[in-house]
Amino acid sequence: MTTTVLVVNGPNLNLLGEREPEVYGSETLADLVADLDRHATDRGVVLRHVQSNVEGELVDTLHAARHEVDGIVLNAGAYSHYSIALRDAIAAIDVPVVETHMSNVLARDQFRHESVIGAECIGVIAGFGTDSYRLAIDALLNHLASRDL
Amino acid sequence: MTTTVLVVNGPNLNLLGEREPEVYGSETLADLVADLDRHATDRGVVLRHVQSNVEGELVDTLHAARHEVDGIVLNAGAYSHYSIALRDAIAAIDVPVVETHMSNVLARDQFRHESVIGAECIGVIAGFGTDSYRLAIDALLNHLASRDL
Amino acid sequence: MTTTVLVVNGPNLNLLGEREPEVYGSETLADLVADLDRHATDRGVVLRHVQSNVEGELVDTLHAARHEVDGIVLNAGAYSHYSIALRDAIAAIDVPVVETHMSNVLARDQFRHESVIGAECIGVIAGFGTDSYRLAIDALLNHLASRDL
Amino acid sequence: MTTTVLVVNGPNLNLLGEREPEVYGSETLADLVADLDRHATDRGVVLRHVQSNVEGELVDTLHAARHEVDGIVLNAGAYSHYSIALRDAIAAIDVPVVETHMSNVLARDQFRHESVIGAECIGVIAGFGTDSYRLAIDALLNHLASRDL
Amino acid sequence: MTTTVLVVNGPNLNLLGEREPEVYGSETLADLVADLDRHATDRGVVLRHVQSNVEGELVDTLHAARHEVDGIVLNAGAYSHYSIALRDAIAAIDVPVVETHMSNVLARDQFRHESVIGAECIGVIAGFGTDSYRLAIDALLNHLASRDL
Amino acid sequence: MTTTVLVVNGPNLNLLGEREPEVYGSETLADLVADLDRHATDRGVVLRHVQSNVEGELVDTLHAARHEVDGIVLNAGAYSHYSIALRDAIAAIDVPVVETHMSNVLARDQFRHESVIGAECIGVIAGFGTDSYRLAIDALLNHLASRDL
Amino acid sequence: MTTTVLVVNGPNLNLLGEREPEVYGSETLADLVADLDRHATDRGVVLRHVQSNVEGELVDTLHAARHEVDGIVLNAGAYSHYSIALRDAIAAIDVPVVETHMSNVLARDQFRHESVIGAECIGVIAGFGTDSYRLAIDALLNHLASRDL
Amino acid sequence: MTTTVLVVNGPNLNLLGEREPEVYGSETLADLVADLDRHATDRGVVLRHVQSNVEGELVDTLHAARHEVDGIVLNAGAYSHYSIALRDAIAAIDVPVVETHMSNVLARDQFRHESVIGAECIGVIAGFGTDSYRLAIDALLNHLASRDL
Amino acid sequence: MTTTVLVVNGPNLNLLGEREPEVYGSETLADLVADLDRHATDRGVVLRHVQSNVEGELVDTLHAARHEVDGIVLNAGAYSHYSIALRDAIAAIDVPVVETHMSNVLARDQFRHESVIGAECIGVIAGFGTDSYRLAIDALLNHLASRDL
Amino acid sequence: MTTTVLVVNGPNLNLLGEREPEVYGSETLADLVADLDRHATDRGVVLRHVQSNVEGELVDTLHAARHEVDGIVLNAGAYSHYSIALRDAIAAIDVPVVETHMSNVLARDQFRHESVIGAECIGVIAGFGTDSYRLAIDALLNHLASRDL
Amino acid sequence: MTTTVLVVNGPNLNLLGEREPEVYGSETLADLVADLDRHATDRGVVLRHVQSNVEGELVDTLHAARHEVDGIVLNAGAYSHYSIALRDAIAAIDVPVVETHMSNVLARDQFRHESVIGAECIGVIAGFGTDSYRLAIDALLNHLASRDL
Amino acid sequence: MTTTVLVVNGPNLNLLGEREPEVYGSETLADLVADLDRHATDRGVVLRHVQSNVEGELVDTLHAARHEVDGIVLNAGAYSHYSIALRDAIAAIDVPVVETHMSNVLARDQFRHESVIGAECIGVIAGFGTDSYRLAIDALLNHLASRDL
Repeated sequence: MTTTVLVVNGPNLNLLGEREPEVYGSETLADLVADLDRHATDRGVVLRHVQSNVEGELVDTLHAARHEVDGIVLNAGAYSHYSIALRDAIAAIDVPVVETHMSNVLARDQFRHESVIGAECIGVIAGFGTDSYRLAIDALLNHLASRDL
Repeated sequence: MTTTVLVVNGPNLNLLGEREPEVYGSETLADLVADLDRHATDRGVVLRHVQSNVEGELVDTLHAARHEVDGIVLNAGAYSHYSIALRDAIAAIDVPVVETHMSNVLARDQFRHESVIGAECIGVIAGFGTDSYRLAIDALLNHLASRDL
Repeated sequence: MTTTVLVVNGPNLNLLGEREPEVYGSETLADLVADLDRHATDRGVVLRHVQSNVEGELVDTLHAARHEVDGIVLNAGAYSHYSIALRDAIAAIDVPVVETHMSNVLARDQFRHESVIGAECIGVIAGFGTDSYRLAIDALLNHLASRDL
Repeated sequence: MTTTVLVVNGPNLNLLGEREPEVYGSETLADLVADLDRHATDRGVVLRHVQSNVEGELVDTLHAARHEVDGIVLNAGAYSHYSIALRDAIAAIDVPVVETHMSNVLARDQFRHESVIGAECIGVIAGFGTDSYRLAIDALLNHLASRDL
Repeated sequence: MTTTVLVVNGPNLNLLGEREPEVYGSETLADLVADLDRHATDRGVVLRHVQSNVEGELVDTLHAARHEVDGIVLNAGAYSHYSIALRDAIAAIDVPVVETHMSNVLARDQFRHESVIGAECIGVIAGFGTDSYRLAIDALLNHLASRDL
Repeated sequence: MTTTVLVVNGPNLNLLGEREPEVYGSETLADLVADLDRHATDRGVVLRHVQSNVEGELVDTLHAARHEVDGIVLNAGAYSHYSIALRDAIAAIDVPVVETHMSNVLARDQFRHESVIGAECIGVIAGFGTDSYRLAIDALLNHLASRDL
Repeated sequence: MTTTVLVVNGPNLNLLGEREPEVYGSETLADLVADLDRHATDRGVVLRHVQSNVEGELVDTLHAARHEVDGIVLNAGAYSHYSIALRDAIAAIDVPVVETHMSNVLARDQFRHESVIGAECIGVIAGFGTDSYRLAIDALLNHLASRDL
Repeated sequence: MTTTVLVVNGPNLNLLGEREPEVYGSETLADLVADLDRHATDRGVVLRHVQSNVEGELVDTLHAARHEVDGIVLNAGAYSHYSIALRDAIAAIDVPVVETHMSNVLARDQFRHESVIGAECIGVIAGFGTDSYRLAIDALLNHLASRDL
Repeated sequence: MTTTVLVVNGPNLNLLGEREPEVYGSETLADLVADLDRHATDRGVVLRHVQSNVEGELVDTLHAARHEVDGIVLNAGAYSHYSIALRDAIAAIDVPVVETHMSNVLARDQFRHESVIGAECIGVIAGFGTDSYRLAIDALLNHLASRDL
Repeated sequence: MTTTVLVVNGPNLNLLGEREPEVYGSETLADLVADLDRHATDRGVVLRHVQSNVEGELVDTLHAARHEVDGIVLNAGAYSHYSIALRDAIAAIDVPVVETHMSNVLARDQFRHESVIGAECIGVIAGFGTDSYRLAIDALLNHLASRDL
Repeated sequence: MTTTVLVVNGPNLNLLGEREPEVYGSETLADLVADLDRHATDRGVVLRHVQSNVEGELVDTLHAARHEVDGIVLNAGAYSHYSIALRDAIAAIDVPVVETHMSNVLARDQFRHESVIGAECIGVIAGFGTDSYRLAIDALLNHLASRDL
Repeated sequence: MTTTVLVVNGPNLNLLGEREPEVYGSETLADLVADLDRHATDRGVVLRHVQSNVEGELVDTLHAARHEVDGIVLNAGAYSHYSIALRDAIAAIDVPVVETHMSNVLARDQFRHESVIGAECIGVIAGFGTDSYRLAIDALLNHLASRDL
């Protein structure tokens, strides 16, 4: 059975390619989705993609995915730093989640140094631009593979 | 005229019965709604039920209820700890609200010890599982009864 | 065998009815005791009552009750906010305790927002005036009933 | 070409005129919209109006406006104090934003003293009731005029 | 009718004259009581004296005094810095209380700089050795006299 | 009777036009005064101007103005962030004061985010360069007009 | 040789009798000076009076007094809470200083609870209105008398 | 002359052997007393034992002991973390005190990491179960012996 | 020319496989080195390996590598949380560094949530056991590849 | 088989007898080693001794000891207050460690009150000069003896 | 053209030689001025001297010097720790300033450890008594010399 | 007898001239050593030089110097901000130490504003590039000269 991974993008990531390009690069979200799909195909897995700016919709998305996907790559953007609701949603589902950031949050504002969701994820990857997503997918697949041993 | 109480459930409570059962038990939200309706019927009052994971929809729900119900039982979940918007919504309406939690928030993470909404509620009941809702309904009815004296 | 509940009132609650009536109402502690006894009789349980202004006597009271009662309704008043001794006393005994407050502590001074005893209680009820005690008794009885299932 | 300004009202501002009138006055949001439109007409500019209680919808609104309007008057209400998502949305678009509050936030609760969105706005106007909006519009028009020099 | 003032001494003040004489001098509590009685006689008022090391007994003392005395001089010693129970006791009675310290608490440990009881007293006098008590009695008598005008 | 507004400029504002021009622009204080006088003349009001680098002289200025002017536009500069004396002076007089800043203090050092004087002003305007003053004058005139209704 | 005491009043105390009369009463500074002079005459001592709103002038005043007076009653007003310069001035002179406040600073804003000057004074008297000054004079005279023994 | 050591046990230690046995073991206080007496006999010293849950009684106990014993082993339990009264009592007497804990307080709740009494003791021993008392007695005897050299 | 990557392991990582296996797994450092070498060979790059428990040696290692390698995978262990010296070493060299952790530091003690070195690295990967290293190598290689474009 | 205990002395303890003798006494480290060896011989155990000023060497020392000794007496000196690396080293080995200090750290600078290593030790002994080591050895032997029961 | 350096002394430095001689020595300000003039003459530069206890006059002094001197040696005394106005004055002028202290502020009260003005100075010299000024002059001259290269 | 001064350079200073040249300049450590030696020769004193990146070696260096040199110029780099071990080493030796920094630490990251070693040094010089060392040598020589008077 094919492994399915959900890629969730949170607030302001729909503006990728246009928003603060010196931080986030010039690739759009559509470009990124296409790139990640190619990356997934190479590994024989299927991706689903969701983007929302609404905290509660991200909670809904995680809930809905709980019986549908094998793992989640989550770039929760700004919500990473204060959304306890999202933290509880991750804790509420039995699917491994990788916290993912394009920018190196440790090199930005102090309030971006703490993640309230990280404690419920299996790990975090941050700072590698769009490559963060590819690494997160790989990390997730390795995690699933090792879990199945 | 029949007393009407709105029961509002916030983020992740739709997963009741499935989510962290060691904290929240195995009763689903549908079970809970049925139980609370029976409890309300015994007391001659009518309940309405709303659940949402979206902070702003919870704000909308409180607003919409302000001329429709006599009191509100609010389990705002994670939003209890940071949603100033919800706090302002409670302050904005002239309906008594009881802050309600299934788990004993004081025995969990430090960030769950403070409630930003509590100052605008009439009181708080936490720690008694689904019984917290029944106690909150009773507290609200007693409050309304004493107010009418 | 009859269920017995101990109602413990801490510092300054002996002045009930006289002290800051805008916060605590005009019912005296004797009135409250009589009311609660009627409430208990309705539910077929027996109450015992203790009031002390001395932190260590409250510790003694909890200790003494540990083989004598089935549950404890504890309004520790100001000690709720700093008595680690009382917290340890609750942890030391194998009797469920409900933290109870007449006023909504979350709507008062910041230093009343944190409870150092709450983490060792099964739950908290605050803000409903003398009704907080009745709700706490009910919460305790439901807790005992569900535990016996 | 006509200058267009978007006026964005955040959580609980739909209840204007009804909510805490001692803080916010008795004028409704509809009244305010009409007043501001008159004010704008006097200055030869056009206003658009959006109100939402949902944080993510406010983010969406800012995004959608980025190629449509010349400036934004933003009363983010409670979200001003914790919505990093909104802060990032302001940073993501190339449109000047004026942080606007009806009440003097510095004279209210401590947690209303800090604005997490202000650092990405061009300025802040607070405390003048509905007049804050008119001043914000003027500030924005002057800003645009001076920028065009 | 003779004015009566209660002088309350808290923890460790029974050791006056013996305890840290470089801070508290060599006069004993008995000496102090005799001195203050002379001072009071000169002013035509009567003093009562209580000393206890037990926080709850100090609460009891304040309660018992509420219909018996016209004012209270309170040196709560270490309890000044953490006894919210004592603060509540002062708030609970309708008798003016003057917070009194022999040493200048502001020149000692940081934790002695804040008084949790001061907000409920009419004023504070600290740093003048046993003279602090005489000044507190005078302050109280002046306060009572001005109140009677 | 002509409305009179006092414009008070605090520390370092005498160097306007010369000091950190990237923050404060190149207009001098004399230029600003002339501009504001024209602005005031347009609105039929009279301005008085005071600049001082001495905290206590600013206090004196506010005191002296209390029976002389109808409102005050106050750019207290650095003193905004720590001068409790200035805060008390504003509270001591019965004249409305508008806190005014040329720069957006929320986008600068963390210690510039809090204003200790703001709680005693009617509102704050910051970030619009010299236009902040014009907006503050307008805000004040509108405030006075609405108060006279 | 006659004992001389300097009474120093800091910022905003020149407005006594007019400023926030619910906090500071209706007696003016001139009234107070006259009253205190009578009080001093009764005790055979001479007072000098200085009032300034300028922090540095208060420093100058303390310096100038160091060979001229036997003691100082200092109501530093708002400067009590942040003027390390004043603290250093007190430490720099060999004259006993009594920190004096009319209002009970412990019952007001949190930032008024700490005194940065108190550690260098011999004691503090606060909360007794203008009587605080008379008590401070007495405290100082007793202090001088006991020192001379 | 025989050396006498007072062993003082504070709040909840009367429940030793019954209270949280995973933390405190199964030996009762009576067992412990007997054990320590044997230990003391081996060393030719005499022990006295006091246990109280009342903070002020512990203060009284330390006072009473000041001319009666050569040293004190003090397990102040929870009071170690907030009783400034007890700290002052230790400072008030001229008898060496060893702060003693059965559990390793550094491996428990954060609020148990700081001791407010430790600064006035000669040292601290924590974490060795009932052996902490024996080590404290030995430490005290060595201290007394070295002091007598 | 072959790409060379330095893998630096900090304090306690020499005990890998033996130390807290529930956190760090049972693979030894030698096993890990062999695994990573295979991983590198697959990608046509060469690894060098250093492990030290000495903070200053880790600084030396980074310095020495600055003209020798193309990138660094750094698991600084506990030093990540307080070694400003290591942070400065990373800033001092012109080689990209990836902060790497086997465990999910965000799910452990609060003091492990902040990294003082992260701000000078290009990114962070944490939580994937030994796979964190492989992902870090890949991240580095992608980073180098994209930099060469 | 003979019990072996490792005594580890951290930074600056090589200067014992010379360094701040008012705090640490005049006995040298060599004296101390000889004394402790005699103490150990009396108890039929063997001591090993290591002293280093290098944090990482102390880590190495703990590692190397993990299969060689039965227990460790560790005076980590200043490192006790910030070396998370040392904390992790203690956690990494399966040998009981007693945190030991000659001075009473609770009576010194605030930053010496917290120990970052204590949570991983079995207990702490501080304040008894060189006797702290002897007590720590005894504590360790008792601990080992009780563990073997 | 002769290099001119302004030496500015802030609050309480006029009492030099008299004030806390154990901290500041017995040399008076006049002595110091003469000494520094000799030191300057040796280096072929001219000094100007200003002392004021008034924060705003120090601001004025810095402003006035901006076209008159080549560098400034500033001992701002207590104002160093809270005068943001002074900080802004330093930032406002284009003259290098050396922060200078006679005492080692790091060895005194905690609130003297932070300097709010230091970030705008070129460097700081503290702890060398009056020699701090000579070193500051030398530092400034070297700075000017290297700048002119 | 020739005066000898030890110049100690801490972590990362071996990279001087190469590391962050915009902060530290382009002079290498060897250049600096040569320059300082010339400076010392001019003053008739001898320098010794040590550089290490290892905290404990710096401790060793200070210890070893205690009978060998007359004073120490210490640039502890990053260790200045957290090495309590180094602080204790300075306190342990009877040689005057001058804390020295090339950069103005007050104008850099907040965590560089506090020095944990400064309280044990005689003074601090920071911000003058390599000239900081020359000034520190002069400061030390003046200190030694004045001490010998």
